Amino acid sequence: MYKLFYSPGTIALTPHIVLEEIGASFDAIRVNFADGEQTKPDYLKINPKGRVPALITEQGILTETPAILLYLAQKHPDAKLAPLDDVFQLGKMQSINSYLSSTAHVNHAHRRRGTRWVTEKSSIEDMGRKVKSNMEDCFALIQSEMFKGPWVMGDDYSVADPYLFTVSRWLEGDGVNIADFPKIEAHFARMMERPAVQRALALHTA
Amino acid sequence: MYKLFYSPGTIALTPHIVLEEIGASFDAIRVNFADGEQTKPDYLKINPKGRVPALITEQGILTETPAILLYLAQKHPDAKLAPLDDVFQLGKMQSINSYLSSTAHVNHAHRRRGTRWVTEKSSIEDMGRKVKSNMEDCFALIQSEMFKGPWVMGDDYSVADPYLFTVSRWLEGDGVNIADFPKIEAHFARMMERPAVQRALALHTA
Repeated sequence: MYKLFYSPGTIALTPHIVLEEIGASFDAIRVNFADGEQTKPDYLKINPKGRVPALITEQGILTETPAILLYLAQKHPDAKLAPLDDVFQLGKMQSINSYLSSTAHVNHAHRRRGTRWVTEKSSIEDMGRKVKSNMEDCFALIQSEMFKGPWVMGDDYSVADPYLFTVSRWLEGDGVNIADFPKIEAHFARMMERPAVQRALALHTA
Repeated sequence: MYKLFYSPGTIALTPHIVLEEIGASFDAIRVNFADGEQTKPDYLKINPKGRVPALITEQGILTETPAILLYLAQKHPDAKLAPLDDVFQLGKMQSINSYLSSTAHVNHAHRRRGTRWVTEKSSIEDMGRKVKSNMEDCFALIQSEMFKGPWVMGDDYSVADPYLFTVSRWLEGDGVNIADFPKIEAHFARMMERPAVQRALALHTA
């Protein structure tokens, strides 16, 4: 039995979808960001970074989305959520997940979480003005250089798919028109048809 | 025969050390950042992101440090550079590498690469003022919550060690006194004693 700590709208949707795809037994525990619950002592015992997701497993707690995704894919090989038998293809998948984490997600975070890096109101506003073009640059690159289709890695669905889907959901709020990236838009629609995605989203859009 | 594209002082030092630890046959190819070579067509064919590292393998090109590290550890299991037989411990290692990539490295990048996220001179200056405390927060967390000692993962050296070492090298330039983090300082000294580290550093400090 896993426990997944999440907040709606965050990147925690990604492991949430993966747990649903696996058909794993898990509790989804909502962390109340509006009350700052993620920064309070009880939650910091679970994740001292004060972020979501955090996954409690029978062996201990894991944080950081790319790490959680690889763990779940390796722990549940029958779900076939990663090219586990091909070290290079797994490297390619990890490369995409790493880019989503350290570039695309980070660029998005500059819209609402700017106080992580600056203090002045004028800097926050300046930062906000660059988010749209930064996200467009990311998605242009993802579409042309990483995405194979119909799924991220080609014919086989993998944990990179819910990861891309979750970040794609942020585009509208970042001022980006997903229709400018037709392959990503088609992928988004394809993801929305999956029962696992619909089940996870029910909690994230409630 | 691998080819590693690097620039001195960058995160490319990490896979460089790992290739030396493995004893792999490789060419280290310096990308001339002073001339903007990383943004020119020849290099963009290798890595369309215009960044280093990029690793050319016999199966294709890999980018993104955490992905390259996992690939090398899996491809060369005899080098014992990751807990490959324990899915959870591998998850812990990936979690640390992911944090180094998407939080510590990103915080550091706000000192010299601020134009990725803002435009105004005042914002760049504002950003610069926050780098020291952000890096201190990262290293306080790494020391208290992630680092086991004597190596990052405990008794066994892993790819997380050269990763931590490389980011630790940036502390001085970021205004942080590594002596404020005694476990990290001791780890740094321990790393400097390794022949593989010395061999890689010779090219990065030339």
